[in-house]
Amino acid sequence: MSHGGRFITLEGIDGSGKSTQARLLAGALEAHGHDVTLTREPGGSPGAEEIRALVLEGDPDRWSAETELLLFTAARRDHLERTIRPALDAGKVVICDRFVDSTRMYQGLSRGDLRAKVDALHRLMIGIEADLTLLFDMDPDLGHARAKGRGTAEERFEDFGAGMQAKMRQGFLDLAAEFSDRFRVIDAGRAIEAVAEDVAALVLEHLA
Amino acid sequence: MSHGGRFITLEGIDGSGKSTQARLLAGALEAHGHDVTLTREPGGSPGAEEIRALVLEGDPDRWSAETELLLFTAARRDHLERTIRPALDAGKVVICDRFVDSTRMYQGLSRGDLRAKVDALHRLMIGIEADLTLLFDMDPDLGHARAKGRGTAEERFEDFGAGMQAKMRQGFLDLAAEFSDRFRVIDAGRAIEAVAEDVAALVLEHLA
Repeated sequence: MSHGGRFITLEGIDGSGKSTQARLLAGALEAHGHDVTLTREPGGSPGAEEIRALVLEGDPDRWSAETELLLFTAARRDHLERTIRPALDAGKVVICDRFVDSTRMYQGLSRGDLRAKVDALHRLMIGIEADLTLLFDMDPDLGHARAKGRGTAEERFEDFGAGMQAKMRQGFLDLAAEFSDRFRVIDAGRAIEAVAEDVAALVLEHLA
Repeated sequence: MSHGGRFITLEGIDGSGKSTQARLLAGALEAHGHDVTLTREPGGSPGAEEIRALVLEGDPDRWSAETELLLFTAARRDHLERTIRPALDAGKVVICDRFVDSTRMYQGLSRGDLRAKVDALHRLMIGIEADLTLLFDMDPDLGHARAKGRGTAEERFEDFGAGMQAKMRQGFLDLAAEFSDRFRVIDAGRAIEAVAEDVAALVLEHLA
């Protein structure tokens, strides 16, 4: 079968099962004859991985929010050019674990005044938005328990207090309302297989 | 003496004597009672130096023009926050060897279509322009002979052919015309002492 390229992003707090669901979705789409590229951010191309390492290593305060935003946008540009755009041009379905909505949500929580800069920078240097964004939504206490100890980005936010996971969930739900044309909210607090079935059905319908 | 902070940038092709003149100017201003911060780009702060190394190491084609622009803007943001802005806030005279005009000139030559993005990105994430920009202008053959073998940024442009040094000179002169309110063109093809005297007189008059 020949399909036009489609760009599908997965968002949600850590522990929401999004990375597992990304892999299951890739398998389900391939079983239906789609060519799939599975990728993730931050990172997703060799250059972007190098920039990611530069941002995340060392003292968390070594970069300001503005510098970090520029570095992550540089990584995203490399990821777009080397991985996402070539796959879309080849007619593939690109499944990307986190994209600009994660940047919007995190900057919105830590430096809300930067949201306008996030959007302006994205329009100027990246341009593309997902065709479909799946938000893996769940009780933050459950997500927190799953993510704990994994050394992931969200741990940097735990210093802000116990309510941070709830604020991150709400931040994503607010984005789902703002971009309701491309967001679909998935109840991710169920069994993995049940979530995967819903996701595959939803995406196959979108691709049809 | 107490002076408000002033931001002075030095531009010109490699071999134009700009770095030597930056040091001589710093000494002359200090002799007149000014507090001076002497800095340079790319680099100028520990974080910016790390980003600079990431951009310049390895295959010259490893980053696209857009990604390189984002990385250099991230380095400039760090340099601004950690070095330039604190010095200006303390009322110092900041002398900076290369700044955004170098980015404008190089991107203008290699990817002229990016000039609008350079300016938009600068307005969005950096904001500041120099109070005074000194362009060290000279015969490109002389500058080329001086710069040859120094392993500097301009060598990357030599592949474009023998006319590149002349095009870089013209690129800077075009910027001097575009931003004529802050640019002053210095005849840098003379003896170091003669140039230094002119520069010191011009800058002291600007600061008075």
